[in-house]
Amino acid sequence: MSSDRTNWNIKSSRTAKQAHNPIRAIVDQLKLDPNATKPLISLSIGDPTIFGNFNVDPSINEAVTKQLNSYRSNGYPPADGTLQARTAIANEYNTPEAPLAPSDVILANGCSGALEMCVNVLCNEGSNILIPRPGFSLYASLAATRFVETKYYNLLPEKSWEADLAQLESLIDEKTSAILVNNPSNPCGSVYSREHLQAILDIAEKHHVPIIADEIYCDLVFEGNKFFPMATLTSTVPVLAVGGLAKKWLVPGWRVGWIMIHDRNGIFKEINEGLHQLAQIILGPNSLIQAAIPDILEKTPASFFEATIKQLEDNVKLSIDVVSKIDGLVPVNPQGAMYMMVGIEIEKFKDIENDVQFSAKLLAEENVVCLPGECFNYPNYVRFVITPTIDRLEEAYKRMEEFCARHRK
Amino acid sequence: MSSDRTNWNIKSSRTAKQAHNPIRAIVDQLKLDPNATKPLISLSIGDPTIFGNFNVDPSINEAVTKQLNSYRSNGYPPADGTLQARTAIANEYNTPEAPLAPSDVILANGCSGALEMCVNVLCNEGSNILIPRPGFSLYASLAATRFVETKYYNLLPEKSWEADLAQLESLIDEKTSAILVNNPSNPCGSVYSREHLQAILDIAEKHHVPIIADEIYCDLVFEGNKFFPMATLTSTVPVLAVGGLAKKWLVPGWRVGWIMIHDRNGIFKEINEGLHQLAQIILGPNSLIQAAIPDILEKTPASFFEATIKQLEDNVKLSIDVVSKIDGLVPVNPQGAMYMMVGIEIEKFKDIENDVQFSAKLLAEENVVCLPGECFNYPNYVRFVITPTIDRLEEAYKRMEEFCARHRK
Repeated sequence: MSSDRTNWNIKSSRTAKQAHNPIRAIVDQLKLDPNATKPLISLSIGDPTIFGNFNVDPSINEAVTKQLNSYRSNGYPPADGTLQARTAIANEYNTPEAPLAPSDVILANGCSGALEMCVNVLCNEGSNILIPRPGFSLYASLAATRFVETKYYNLLPEKSWEADLAQLESLIDEKTSAILVNNPSNPCGSVYSREHLQAILDIAEKHHVPIIADEIYCDLVFEGNKFFPMATLTSTVPVLAVGGLAKKWLVPGWRVGWIMIHDRNGIFKEINEGLHQLAQIILGPNSLIQAAIPDILEKTPASFFEATIKQLEDNVKLSIDVVSKIDGLVPVNPQGAMYMMVGIEIEKFKDIENDVQFSAKLLAEENVVCLPGECFNYPNYVRFVITPTIDRLEEAYKRMEEFCARHRK
Repeated sequence: MSSDRTNWNIKSSRTAKQAHNPIRAIVDQLKLDPNATKPLISLSIGDPTIFGNFNVDPSINEAVTKQLNSYRSNGYPPADGTLQARTAIANEYNTPEAPLAPSDVILANGCSGALEMCVNVLCNEGSNILIPRPGFSLYASLAATRFVETKYYNLLPEKSWEADLAQLESLIDEKTSAILVNNPSNPCGSVYSREHLQAILDIAEKHHVPIIADEIYCDLVFEGNKFFPMATLTSTVPVLAVGGLAKKWLVPGWRVGWIMIHDRNGIFKEINEGLHQLAQIILGPNSLIQAAIPDILEKTPASFFEATIKQLEDNVKLSIDVVSKIDGLVPVNPQGAMYMMVGIEIEKFKDIENDVQFSAKLLAEENVVCLPGECFNYPNYVRFVITPTIDRLEEAYKRMEEFCARHRK
């Protein structure tokens, strides 16, 4: 048997054709003006490191340098991560309500890699997964490359972005393989109460659907709020919780994430085995950083996290104070993470028809970038990243005020 | 519409069930004896760093330390890798016959991650891919998780592991999406001549099948041999070449690989786009190492690579000298990389029936580990890693000689 091909006709796979980053597609429409007179201010990228005001703690660099200089951490780590790293993570997140052993932890290439493994182990082609709207676009992208259907449950801005529980429940059918809950939330900055998380768990339990808990922002929450790891609130619903170094330790580029498998009554027996199988295909994160994880988790001082939160709180306060006074913009107060969603009262503007146009004109005229809600499947909002320095935020909001004044009816 | 599920019944996905590492499955049968009196000698893991005799060059550590201390390389790199890293790689591998621009390079999570992307972009469920036997087991594992059929082309030990060209060609059909060529080879240590690579390319051209060239060992070849990058030998056959820091720079745990897209006449237009799309789902390697790549590629002294090769050559010489004198074992002389395949003349042994049994008994009785050929789909051979220190190799071969004498008819 031989090929009948008489010429080259190489098509990319279905998977590659599905691979799609909506943020990129939308951002590519926002053109930078090379002749802009005002300096660029970006409120668009969820990367706290780029402005120079959120730096890694020196102890973290010391931990990595120690490994570099040992010449003993350059080899292949075990497929699911080094025992030392998994033990350190298990110890860090272990609670009486949600006990964790090292074997319940799997390291991955960033929290994105952890989420990919969760989707890969729980979902088949043709099944569906419930994801939040507005929500981080990676969830839908991951599902698409596996031909998994995404069903969106609505978050309600008037209820601090809590899920619309009745609508969420109405989406569940026999092909639903998981409910993804992102708390604290990107792009919303919301932090859910114990009661709200419990209500979602009740639905999961009623319909026997497992939870994927994206908890990468974990306890980066502001005064008056408290982060509840979802797995600590249930003894019956199995949860795959994902986390990583990216946000709390301020090293998103290091690509270190992890899955914490919270089985309940053996329901996740196959899932646990499947995750360990998947881990053996592509090894996890860089060996130097894996080796440094015990030191990083143990030695980063509490003051480092407190300083991060303090700075975020100051930025939120300024943002709410200033933006809420701009006629036509309605910020929703964030409770944690690094973002603020801002509603646009489209009817108040004479020549702005939607969020994408708002972002495009703001960039063209004021050289300020923010992501349109469209990137998160949520039109007529924009997302501001609140990690820039105070002076940059002030300048950005000043320009925005002038911009809105110019375009209001 | 609601779920009819009345209980928890969570199964892992088809993908997870397909995820399989044959090396792990076979090695798990090889039990370490906790009461062994002789110290363990492992000739099983293709990781040169574990014996302390192949260390990273200090200039590489300096390059990473510089980035750590800059506090400027902790943020998200672009999805396909930093421009500086891609430029450095393009410059390093650019040739007149196979020109490379930075946009032809995509960084990935190790060479394994690069191979996964190549399979993902070229292959659909139900298509097939030609892979070498004996060959690195990851190829089949990657194909399996995408439900891609693997067809094995035979490598011939009597021809220094060249491919059986007629048999290779006979496997090609209209569903063949790629021919994977691994040169220099793991597990064979073979280094193909220009003529042999040309003959494979001729078949690829005749049937219009693209090449995936796994060239992770690149110019780690021994005196008298020369490495020809496959893409440099064709102006008509499109090639995805993969490489990385792991072997040549002796940092396999750092997980830095790359794809070099060698399009020919626009045949790979969709593939190029598809790879860049896939890259946007899960970001590539650690940002510190990415930032250090220009220094690593530019400043690692030639003497470092020469010393690596010299040590490997010395180890090969010893291995061939000693093992070829053991009655019942027939080593095949390696020409590069870090491995040696050794045939077992099963008929000469009274109580050893195959390679898995050979490895198991050698471990039980002599505390020496080597991988049975079964791990590479090639029975009645064993693979020795030739990176241990000379004294360890001597001791291992001495024990093997006694072992064979004891078990011979």
